[in-house]
Amino acid sequence: MFIEAINHRAINQYVYARDKETIDIMLETKKGDIDNVELIFADPYDFKGDKWQYRTKKMIKSGTTTRVDYWKISVKPEFRRLRYGFRCTDTNKNEIFFTERGFNNSVPADINSFFCFPYLHEVDIFQAPDWVKDTVWYQIFPERFANGDASLNPEATLPWGSMDPTPTNFFGGDFQGVMDHLDYLERLGITGIYFTPIFKAYSNHKYDTIDYFEIDPQFGDKETFRTLVKKCHERGIKVMLDAVFNHSGYYFEPFQDVLKKQEDSRYKDWFHLWEYPVKAEGYPNYDAFGFVASMPKLDTTNPEVKKYLLDVARYWIEEFDIDGWRLDVANEVDHAFWRDFRQVVKKAKPDAYILGEIWHDSMRWLQGDQFDAVMNYPFTNGAVEFFAKNNMDSETFADNITNVLHMYPQNVNEVAFNLLDSHDTARILTEADGNKERIKLLYLFQLSFIGSPCIYYGDEIGMTGGNDPGCRKCMEWDESKQDRELFDFVRKLLHMRKKVPGFGNRADFRFLAVGESMVAYQKQTKDAELIFVLNNSDQAQVIEVESLSNKKGKELFTEEEIIFAKKCEIEVKAFGFKCYQILG
Amino acid sequence: MFIEAINHRAINQYVYARDKETIDIMLETKKGDIDNVELIFADPYDFKGDKWQYRTKKMIKSGTTTRVDYWKISVKPEFRRLRYGFRCTDTNKNEIFFTERGFNNSVPADINSFFCFPYLHEVDIFQAPDWVKDTVWYQIFPERFANGDASLNPEATLPWGSMDPTPTNFFGGDFQGVMDHLDYLERLGITGIYFTPIFKAYSNHKYDTIDYFEIDPQFGDKETFRTLVKKCHERGIKVMLDAVFNHSGYYFEPFQDVLKKQEDSRYKDWFHLWEYPVKAEGYPNYDAFGFVASMPKLDTTNPEVKKYLLDVARYWIEEFDIDGWRLDVANEVDHAFWRDFRQVVKKAKPDAYILGEIWHDSMRWLQGDQFDAVMNYPFTNGAVEFFAKNNMDSETFADNITNVLHMYPQNVNEVAFNLLDSHDTARILTEADGNKERIKLLYLFQLSFIGSPCIYYGDEIGMTGGNDPGCRKCMEWDESKQDRELFDFVRKLLHMRKKVPGFGNRADFRFLAVGESMVAYQKQTKDAELIFVLNNSDQAQVIEVESLSNKKGKELFTEEEIIFAKKCEIEVKAFGFKCYQILG
Repeated sequence: MFIEAINHRAINQYVYARDKETIDIMLETKKGDIDNVELIFADPYDFKGDKWQYRTKKMIKSGTTTRVDYWKISVKPEFRRLRYGFRCTDTNKNEIFFTERGFNNSVPADINSFFCFPYLHEVDIFQAPDWVKDTVWYQIFPERFANGDASLNPEATLPWGSMDPTPTNFFGGDFQGVMDHLDYLERLGITGIYFTPIFKAYSNHKYDTIDYFEIDPQFGDKETFRTLVKKCHERGIKVMLDAVFNHSGYYFEPFQDVLKKQEDSRYKDWFHLWEYPVKAEGYPNYDAFGFVASMPKLDTTNPEVKKYLLDVARYWIEEFDIDGWRLDVANEVDHAFWRDFRQVVKKAKPDAYILGEIWHDSMRWLQGDQFDAVMNYPFTNGAVEFFAKNNMDSETFADNITNVLHMYPQNVNEVAFNLLDSHDTARILTEADGNKERIKLLYLFQLSFIGSPCIYYGDEIGMTGGNDPGCRKCMEWDESKQDRELFDFVRKLLHMRKKVPGFGNRADFRFLAVGESMVAYQKQTKDAELIFVLNNSDQAQVIEVESLSNKKGKELFTEEEIIFAKKCEIEVKAFGFKCYQILG
Repeated sequence: MFIEAINHRAINQYVYARDKETIDIMLETKKGDIDNVELIFADPYDFKGDKWQYRTKKMIKSGTTTRVDYWKISVKPEFRRLRYGFRCTDTNKNEIFFTERGFNNSVPADINSFFCFPYLHEVDIFQAPDWVKDTVWYQIFPERFANGDASLNPEATLPWGSMDPTPTNFFGGDFQGVMDHLDYLERLGITGIYFTPIFKAYSNHKYDTIDYFEIDPQFGDKETFRTLVKKCHERGIKVMLDAVFNHSGYYFEPFQDVLKKQEDSRYKDWFHLWEYPVKAEGYPNYDAFGFVASMPKLDTTNPEVKKYLLDVARYWIEEFDIDGWRLDVANEVDHAFWRDFRQVVKKAKPDAYILGEIWHDSMRWLQGDQFDAVMNYPFTNGAVEFFAKNNMDSETFADNITNVLHMYPQNVNEVAFNLLDSHDTARILTEADGNKERIKLLYLFQLSFIGSPCIYYGDEIGMTGGNDPGCRKCMEWDESKQDRELFDFVRKLLHMRKKVPGFGNRADFRFLAVGESMVAYQKQTKDAELIFVLNNSDQAQVIEVESLSNKKGKELFTEEEIIFAKKCEIEVKAFGFKCYQILG
């Protein structure tokens, strides 16, 4: 038995409160090494004489990678307290007991050896807003979605879509443009809009804020924005704004004051200055975003700065009823700030969504005291490399996605912001070298996965574009230039996500089979089962899906009913797919 | 290579800020599998063209158990930001690169593959009070330390030490008694007193609080206590009190109100009641400590309860200048409460020590936002089982202690509350069946280890006693009945901990050799090296300590100077020890 690869610690994804009565527990073992795992558990105070009254319960293998097997179980302890350990039996029937104090050949006599989840307090549960689990987001880069009010056009605004985007050109997108196209968005079926920054700023992307309390005049004024939010809400669409709190822009008044008055500026402690004179050219002599002099890092531990930014967070919720904050460069701001931010935001709107921009492992921020979710780039990486770029083999892809699902608690996974691309990356169709069939598979995967998926504006009609600024083209509103077939496909998926039990969240996901550029996976709830087979190769292929054996199913796209053979081999055409709803 | 056993995640003990410029990083690998580990690292934004400017640095093997090797390194990133990965070379010169995205045969090209410590914010560093690192605690159970004021004796007080303790008898220990013996404590050399509860309560142990704002009258009044704290401070002795916030006592007024008025009580939401009528006999029909009806669990998420208890926390600091809180049953109180508790306590006294009573893995509470330390029972378990009880072989002991040192960040280890026994366990001399030599080795180990050690009153003079109530005997003040030789030995160790560089905290600890019931370990600082050899068997034994080879040293107890041979075999008599200060 490979005890070096048996992993559990009473923390993070390994043990957590799923809800106010359920504790989820996970164990990792070396792939194929262990045949059976049982949880040994009881209330820590449940003794008869000096004998602890533990019970045992079989754990379920919830996922497998080339490296590990993941085992899961849920228990509902009567008194909300739990001590537990694991009995692992390997393929040779050797048995070992694993507790906090290590490995034993028999059940440890001392209860203090066991792992402990001392008390399930509702207040400590990771609780993200429930609506997020049913939301499909649409990311809008406001300068490029639609120009609905030419009177607001900034100087030198170019005719809509007349040329490729550059880091500095303007096309005059605005709030009126968004309002003009709410029918379009509602028809597509999205239920949340994530706006990249809308506050007064210098650039076209607005990540260099000048004033956090003002709307950028090229987008409209506060009344237009209020109307926009209201109109969205009337259609059941949530609105999330982008908070750039890590750094300000060059023209942010406090930074200008520093540049002007230097050591005498009353704002000198708002930033991380190294020396005087502060020089905002070339390599900055102060902390910045990266080494970008025009984006000076704010000192979010300074109480004045903190108050200012928390007031911003509260203001746009209280005054404009926004539903969430996406937090730019969230990983470089201090945890203490985010803890207070959560308090302020949840007080202003208890079901507001707090989404951090973090590209890497985000466990530190997802313990219930800071964010509800992060932009799930580990998911993005696997999905895009496999489906769009065809750069990853199917086994690595399945490993990647299985790891993504086991790196955080399930509560976290259910509200993860699962994007495919954004204003910071190349568009998916470009990543796929224009191969639309791959993109359809990618959408099918994203929209049948656990989490809160997001569509980047225009992807749904086949827009292309490389890395920034290429991915920031003007939205194509000429229907003859839109890929309407792709639009209808995405729309159908959104509809299925809403209507078909098990298609979206609140279902378990697992891979069933992995072939050459081909995967089969299952979505399962208590009452429903769906099986997806996706062929990401340019050849028709066959894959055997054991668990379909002798079942009856309906393919959701063709509505064809099938009784599967005992040895169930599914043939899928090149870049084709099957979505079987199991009927019995 | 056993990649299944290579472990790191950008969290907890694996990566943390040691101070405002240093990041510590740790990796685990299967024991003996990997020969060399290098950290690959750089600022996340340090590119020349599209090439990331990473450097490499060799990691040090900081510990080994029968299962894993631990590797450590410290880096000081110029801009406080870090991306990193690991190059592992095995004993066959195979090389693998380990990053957040898994294992590769070459350095991943995409910087997003690497682990990330995005920004070192001083406010997020785990910071416990510095004085704790130099403190040796003395635990006093006030009812049993000394009776200095007979006028305060509770009813039916028994003559001091006239019989064994029972769960309910009283001997009249009080604050005056403590004050009368401060010379004794100062002479012993302790620098902190941890008092078990002193607030008004029903029992002799006072864990069943009646009034958190009152001193129990058997101990004295507020003025006596104020004087006691002042006298301690004059001698450089810190004072820590015991906060029993998980549950109240039966006679706590709000609970009495509930029993009396039932559903009409305005305190009914102060507890976790299941039904009416509330009955406080037999098995309680409300949440309690364990199933003890007389200790009803407080609802610390109720804002009124929270305010009440936080006022208590503040009151005793602000009014009486206490230096720390030990938190009873801390693991069963919600994390949200402890986060607010920390804010309140640190505001009242920034260098107050917050110590949680948690017997198991406490990583959840030791992330900088809740506790400074926990009662380090994993340490206790190893040390007592090996030295005192002779129940654990030396290899398991070394594994245990090596794991203890690698389960938390070093900042956490330096202030861990390292007890050997307490009012909740049998006394060490009893655990050792009266074998004082074992106890001397145990003290030598405890007092030369990393952390903040604690001596349970009377152990230093050889008091005995089994589990509660046996361990709560009256302190022996008759010198002729005290083991003065043991006292002098402990006193000498405390003196060495203060005076000998490397003896106490702020030094690295590692085992050098493990024999039959025998261990050798090293304490090392930048400028000092100590080597300890402890023989916990009843036979003289020899152990080879390679790293002493050809060195010069002085034995600290005998003051004998030695030049070690090339093949350095140290002979130690039965239950003997050597403490070598390396001179060159």
